[in-house]
Amino acid sequence: MSARLLTTIAQVREFTGVARRQGHVIGCVPTMGDLHAGHGALIERARTECGSVVVTVFVNPIQFDRQDDYERYTRRLEGDLEFCAARSVDAVFAPAVEEMYPEPMATFVDVPDLARHLCGEFRPGHFRGVATVVAKLFHIVQPDAAYFGEKDAQQLAIIQRMVRDLNMAVRIVPVPTVREPDGLAMSSRNRRLSPEERAAAPVLYRALRAAENAVVTGERDAAKVKSAALGVIAGEPAMRVEYLEVVDAMMQPVAEVSGTVRLVAAAWLGQTRLIDNLACEDQRRREHRPGR
Amino acid sequence: MSARLLTTIAQVREFTGVARRQGHVIGCVPTMGDLHAGHGALIERARTECGSVVVTVFVNPIQFDRQDDYERYTRRLEGDLEFCAARSVDAVFAPAVEEMYPEPMATFVDVPDLARHLCGEFRPGHFRGVATVVAKLFHIVQPDAAYFGEKDAQQLAIIQRMVRDLNMAVRIVPVPTVREPDGLAMSSRNRRLSPEERAAAPVLYRALRAAENAVVTGERDAAKVKSAALGVIAGEPAMRVEYLEVVDAMMQPVAEVSGTVRLVAAAWLGQTRLIDNLACEDQRRREHRPGR
Repeated sequence: MSARLLTTIAQVREFTGVARRQGHVIGCVPTMGDLHAGHGALIERARTECGSVVVTVFVNPIQFDRQDDYERYTRRLEGDLEFCAARSVDAVFAPAVEEMYPEPMATFVDVPDLARHLCGEFRPGHFRGVATVVAKLFHIVQPDAAYFGEKDAQQLAIIQRMVRDLNMAVRIVPVPTVREPDGLAMSSRNRRLSPEERAAAPVLYRALRAAENAVVTGERDAAKVKSAALGVIAGEPAMRVEYLEVVDAMMQPVAEVSGTVRLVAAAWLGQTRLIDNLACEDQRRREHRPGR
Repeated sequence: MSARLLTTIAQVREFTGVARRQGHVIGCVPTMGDLHAGHGALIERARTECGSVVVTVFVNPIQFDRQDDYERYTRRLEGDLEFCAARSVDAVFAPAVEEMYPEPMATFVDVPDLARHLCGEFRPGHFRGVATVVAKLFHIVQPDAAYFGEKDAQQLAIIQRMVRDLNMAVRIVPVPTVREPDGLAMSSRNRRLSPEERAAAPVLYRALRAAENAVVTGERDAAKVKSAALGVIAGEPAMRVEYLEVVDAMMQPVAEVSGTVRLVAAAWLGQTRLIDNLACEDQRRREHRPGR
């Protein structure tokens, strides 16, 4: 069976209104399309928890800091619809830009403290655009739950904080990163890599694993943890690191590892930007919780 | 019968959940309490349109630009509850500050272009605080309709724009300003006026009426329209004008009157700040619409 294609906000409100009256829990999976196994994991998780699953496919112009990146972002709605149908998605909301932005936006949702570093530093306005469009999609779909990948860790933290701060009646469900067999995190952008770049790409994950290993074996100095990762990346001269940090739950770089931290990185291979991250916990903390 | 007092977000969600399942249209009247006949008009309008009316009473700290103004804002919940009971309000949501802000806010809703001038210029951060708390209240109450006074014209414009831009599923209903017999717009702040200040206060409305008269009799030059108003205020030396402008629907000051404009003003009498406004349409425009 095919997923129902909705292109207008009115159609979504009608669709979800019926689902709600039928007593269905509504799950929303916001995407920019070009769906891959990472999105598949979000959909499958939503499918297990919700009676009605709505996938949104919208390449959101206000979250792109570079016009060329926006323009060359892959659109392939036919393939996305097949992908969703194969996973029993109930509806796909794929609006035109004019449906989402019929006039210039005057209203913005912003989480500035969490957007200050990492991707936010290198992509000005990006997370304001993300928070704003996710707020719009939540108001349109009015889901009970929404599913986001841990791969976009800063985005996930910002959306979780937005929902909490603004008392949005939606449960945010983080879904673990899906990886290729060689460790590369799934991303639509991976398809842009040349064969040589694709072969080099997993070094980013290996670098994060090296940093994780440093933390797990007792390293507390964030600078040394970072060095462990950068040493691995140095073996791959094609990769240019944009940032590599040890951060806390507020996405603030820390100087000393304490409790749960996240190792986060962005790096370029040619014209393609990759991001990845790993959460890890220092062992002192774990020793205090013998039950884990 | 008394209105039900709700103090937690969980209580509101339960109350509105029941009302929704009973098929009631839910109306919300957001206030800062110290209710007067102006709020009464909002409640009465909501009462005619909604099966369930929720009044929120919350002096919102993040919209005050001055701590002393926040601290001396009148709180009198007992009186507000009686006021609501007399008007058949179903529930009053009066949360503590800790219920609304259990941690420092990291998320803000902002409509910068509409907040740039007028009150926004003189009360930095005020409208960001208003938009943010109204978004929170909408997510908590999830009303079908919400009622706002035209007296706070810039606030109303900002909230209307926020709802439109963010696709919030709530209908914003503007309610005309309620005035004392001498023309003074109802406001909680009027109670702070000394007898002499109270006697002087209606000059603000008379000034706006003089400006309106200038527009209606054909004046197109905004500077001259403003002069007509300022000339009236000059007769009351106790009043200090903060701003007096002719603005368009985007709350931008205009140099020439064209179509529908709004005459907006803020002025001080001693330690009390008053605002008022009037919409008016130039006659050329009306001549093109003989049916009106």
